[in-house]
Amino acid sequence: MAPAADAKLTGLVAATFTPFTTQGDINLPVIGPYIDYLIEQQGVKGIFVNGTTGEGMSLTVAERKVLAEEWCQKAKGKMDRVIVHVGCLSVKESQELARHAAQIGADGISIIAPFFFKPKNPEALREFMKEVAAAAPNLPFYYYQIPALTGVNVQVIDVIQDIEQLIPSFRGVKFTGSDLMDLGQCVSYCRPEWSVLYGVDEHLLAGLAMGVHGAVGSTYNYIGCHVNKLVSAFENGDLVKARTIQFKMQELLSYAMKLGFDVGVNKQLMSELSGLSLGPPRLPLTPCPHAQAELISQKYRSVFL
Amino acid sequence: MAPAADAKLTGLVAATFTPFTTQGDINLPVIGPYIDYLIEQQGVKGIFVNGTTGEGMSLTVAERKVLAEEWCQKAKGKMDRVIVHVGCLSVKESQELARHAAQIGADGISIIAPFFFKPKNPEALREFMKEVAAAAPNLPFYYYQIPALTGVNVQVIDVIQDIEQLIPSFRGVKFTGSDLMDLGQCVSYCRPEWSVLYGVDEHLLAGLAMGVHGAVGSTYNYIGCHVNKLVSAFENGDLVKARTIQFKMQELLSYAMKLGFDVGVNKQLMSELSGLSLGPPRLPLTPCPHAQAELISQKYRSVFL
Amino acid sequence: MAPAADAKLTGLVAATFTPFTTQGDINLPVIGPYIDYLIEQQGVKGIFVNGTTGEGMSLTVAERKVLAEEWCQKAKGKMDRVIVHVGCLSVKESQELARHAAQIGADGISIIAPFFFKPKNPEALREFMKEVAAAAPNLPFYYYQIPALTGVNVQVIDVIQDIEQLIPSFRGVKFTGSDLMDLGQCVSYCRPEWSVLYGVDEHLLAGLAMGVHGAVGSTYNYIGCHVNKLVSAFENGDLVKARTIQFKMQELLSYAMKLGFDVGVNKQLMSELSGLSLGPPRLPLTPCPHAQAELISQKYRSVFL
Amino acid sequence: MAPAADAKLTGLVAATFTPFTTQGDINLPVIGPYIDYLIEQQGVKGIFVNGTTGEGMSLTVAERKVLAEEWCQKAKGKMDRVIVHVGCLSVKESQELARHAAQIGADGISIIAPFFFKPKNPEALREFMKEVAAAAPNLPFYYYQIPALTGVNVQVIDVIQDIEQLIPSFRGVKFTGSDLMDLGQCVSYCRPEWSVLYGVDEHLLAGLAMGVHGAVGSTYNYIGCHVNKLVSAFENGDLVKARTIQFKMQELLSYAMKLGFDVGVNKQLMSELSGLSLGPPRLPLTPCPHAQAELISQKYRSVFL
Repeated sequence: MAPAADAKLTGLVAATFTPFTTQGDINLPVIGPYIDYLIEQQGVKGIFVNGTTGEGMSLTVAERKVLAEEWCQKAKGKMDRVIVHVGCLSVKESQELARHAAQIGADGISIIAPFFFKPKNPEALREFMKEVAAAAPNLPFYYYQIPALTGVNVQVIDVIQDIEQLIPSFRGVKFTGSDLMDLGQCVSYCRPEWSVLYGVDEHLLAGLAMGVHGAVGSTYNYIGCHVNKLVSAFENGDLVKARTIQFKMQELLSYAMKLGFDVGVNKQLMSELSGLSLGPPRLPLTPCPHAQAELISQKYRSVFL
Repeated sequence: MAPAADAKLTGLVAATFTPFTTQGDINLPVIGPYIDYLIEQQGVKGIFVNGTTGEGMSLTVAERKVLAEEWCQKAKGKMDRVIVHVGCLSVKESQELARHAAQIGADGISIIAPFFFKPKNPEALREFMKEVAAAAPNLPFYYYQIPALTGVNVQVIDVIQDIEQLIPSFRGVKFTGSDLMDLGQCVSYCRPEWSVLYGVDEHLLAGLAMGVHGAVGSTYNYIGCHVNKLVSAFENGDLVKARTIQFKMQELLSYAMKLGFDVGVNKQLMSELSGLSLGPPRLPLTPCPHAQAELISQKYRSVFL
Repeated sequence: MAPAADAKLTGLVAATFTPFTTQGDINLPVIGPYIDYLIEQQGVKGIFVNGTTGEGMSLTVAERKVLAEEWCQKAKGKMDRVIVHVGCLSVKESQELARHAAQIGADGISIIAPFFFKPKNPEALREFMKEVAAAAPNLPFYYYQIPALTGVNVQVIDVIQDIEQLIPSFRGVKFTGSDLMDLGQCVSYCRPEWSVLYGVDEHLLAGLAMGVHGAVGSTYNYIGCHVNKLVSAFENGDLVKARTIQFKMQELLSYAMKLGFDVGVNKQLMSELSGLSLGPPRLPLTPCPHAQAELISQKYRSVFL
Repeated sequence: MAPAADAKLTGLVAATFTPFTTQGDINLPVIGPYIDYLIEQQGVKGIFVNGTTGEGMSLTVAERKVLAEEWCQKAKGKMDRVIVHVGCLSVKESQELARHAAQIGADGISIIAPFFFKPKNPEALREFMKEVAAAAPNLPFYYYQIPALTGVNVQVIDVIQDIEQLIPSFRGVKFTGSDLMDLGQCVSYCRPEWSVLYGVDEHLLAGLAMGVHGAVGSTYNYIGCHVNKLVSAFENGDLVKARTIQFKMQELLSYAMKLGFDVGVNKQLMSELSGLSLGPPRLPLTPCPHAQAELISQKYRSVFL
């Protein structure tokens, strides 16, 4: 049975960081408080786990399972939606994670395109997706496009055309790119129960103008409360206010990027702003110097508070 | 004396094609009717001449002068604004064209970044711009960012910061790129008399959401009348209508791009839709097969009529 | 105890394909005959397994172990050297594979740079390498640079400088790139017991001129016998003959590339030329149409026979 | 009448810098001594003027003519060969420069591919070249491939196939790229009277191994004397000696590149090493700090003297 059409995914979804101990092992006890923080402090009720922000590709398959399970358990009754990223370079490992996600009660799964060997055309990517989705046929499936990291630049519109025939559980796309013509065509094309979720936080207003249904991003971990106001303002037709908040996000993020902003820095920033103990990133990411995160925290406070 | 602050440039500006004879020489008599067509059929009252669409870099300096003069003369009393692109790889040739633009009564000048040797930082680009602008100090000066063609990827916000101290005649930027964080920061930063003009026609709605003041593009030559409605709808808060028109533009342009869409094809399409005789493009562009332009024309009719 | 200095790796090494059944499972019984084929038909006595050609990144960790073990067992007493590629996106999975390689008696291990998150500088990459090498401290360790696939473009010379202090088991680099200044500096710098192995088959002669000690490549699976003659000619000072063979390789490979040449096509070509049943590639690679491989086989015959 | 077949171009050719006054105007009186320096100090008897090193694209058409004329006059009876680069973005300006080169007695002309609009296939590039070559049908014509600067990545072998039918005066290619399969195929294909000239100084030995007939480069302005020894060693079969000199070049150039090495720095380095007063570069290049050139000069002395 395919997932219910009424479960359309909308609003802000936080791409969660993976908590590590200082020794670099996964740190499960942080997950419960993390979820409470997102709900109470940020007003965010959807999470996307083990993805880019969660260093999913740097984890072992076994770690990904344990983490996914903990996120699902602790989110139960609290979060509206837990999407588990199950993308791997090996289609077989992705299938294994997809099956596992179904067993633990995830609300959906998602994969990035494989990116060592890159699909040579949309069909090859669709085949890969089909194999993974078929391992968990009852879970809503989302394709995650992120060409800046994968180098896979197929047009999403070419991936999703008639894809329900291949993947009945298909429910949408996390679009982390700047090809807004492709984005617009996806919005224009998509089935009523599908969601187009934008993934470039600093361009969110542009995505909303193009008609996206929600957004997935790392910054919603710590500025979700502000971005929720941006979305509300947009929905109420108050573009000036929406733009003001977007410009603040841009001021913060461009500052961070000039200092050097990768998932390691982002993670440390989240630790400082949330008080959660997320630990260091894993290699090949390297720990963020405290001073760097502190400068960005200060910028956050000067911009938003 | 610097240009008057009240002359802020807004609305749609058509980046004009350069008419050639079938032998490949510039074809001045087409320019008068071209201007009338833009005003009467498209409702477009600003033009940007000798730019990318106008094959400016493929013209000789002498041809660029003759063309600029003809556009200015024929536009007089009809168009609101004629901006002459004077960008060259040689700063001295750009200066010569800037001086000439002042003599013939252009309303403004613009340059792309030099792109054989690329400026190694924003300062080098600012110096280059200063040298050109100083050759026509009374003409509003616009920087034209188009990284997809120049490979020059400096942040525009780093180019325009305090630039009035270097270039008193600076009046804005034609931003043809997809870095909407940079775009937003430019809008947020810009002086009241400056204009941020968006240059990616198929993403226009995103640019408007970010707060741009106008747009320069090649498609406004032939779908300006439709895009004017998009802009009005946006200004009236009718995002659904604006989006509908944007999606039509995207349907047309993505179709064209799949067939192969360069300035040569675009020029032929304009000839077919306008009835103006624009002739072939110049090498290294090659003439567009009639059948290809006809297919795109048909798509235009099926989408917009 | 670090590996013996006398074991310097030289000559041609075949990057082996991974045999699959028609159902897409690993097909171990092909491995024995594969090794005999390489030795008897190609004169190749070194193999590099589970690498790019072997679709290593598309395999599960469990499959990689089984395959590595089979290659080592069947090569025992026949091959001079079996290098196992243990590179993964997850440093922990790479460590697991490194430990396993030590247990099964591999002659060396190698890793590509992690490439989802890319090391932001040579130090981050060195740290990653150190963690993996330390899991199998007695196995010769080779860094495998392949920027066209990983996007990791650090200079190898910056990676290997004084690296014996960090990785006592370091023994060389498989250099699959076209930055021959970097290559030359590596050759010039390298310790007596290290090997610089070139990995661009179609440029081999250039690598030899720069002084490399050996070569690892996929085409040595089926034209190793010809390339051995190239290497001999070069070593005997007969550049005209070496060049003649190199040009034949280039004729074959450029022909193949124009038809579309990926690991899937390459694998099918190997099946046709060797008679071994290697099966299809795994997704995201797609099976090569027979006609395409047949055309390349014909070209092979016309060029080399 | 097409150029004589016996005039095959071989050996080292210096890509000359353009002397400027401190005010940034062209400085003709330096040219005579410059030629003497090349011959007497460097043993270089071919020059390539107004190219990349000569900032040709930053000059006006008028300046290029004056310079070309001065180089030809002063070289008469001294240099074996003066090749004038006549590449422009405008085919008409290239034609004008080609005609002029014929009038002033140049020994050959050359063009880079146009690179604002890029030729969409080899045919478009061949057409462009044909138009330029036809303006000076008696001058040997050389195509200059430099994808790192132009972004035009066509295979040269596809450009030169049967090109004598289109361009009877075609005489070869200056190949400044690292695709050595393409290079090898050009060498293998080329007519007896054509020359394949390699343009990546730091990879020269690789080019020689592939069979090139000569080399054009900027460093031959100041290390030509050493590189002549590299070429002799190679021709005498002494690869060890050739490699030693190549490694020295690489040590110098990699050092320079780490400090930041563009044509402006290169020009200042040439001034310091030769004693010639070449002046600053022109915008968008910016003057090289003296300290930077001095560091590279020191490195030169420590490596070569």
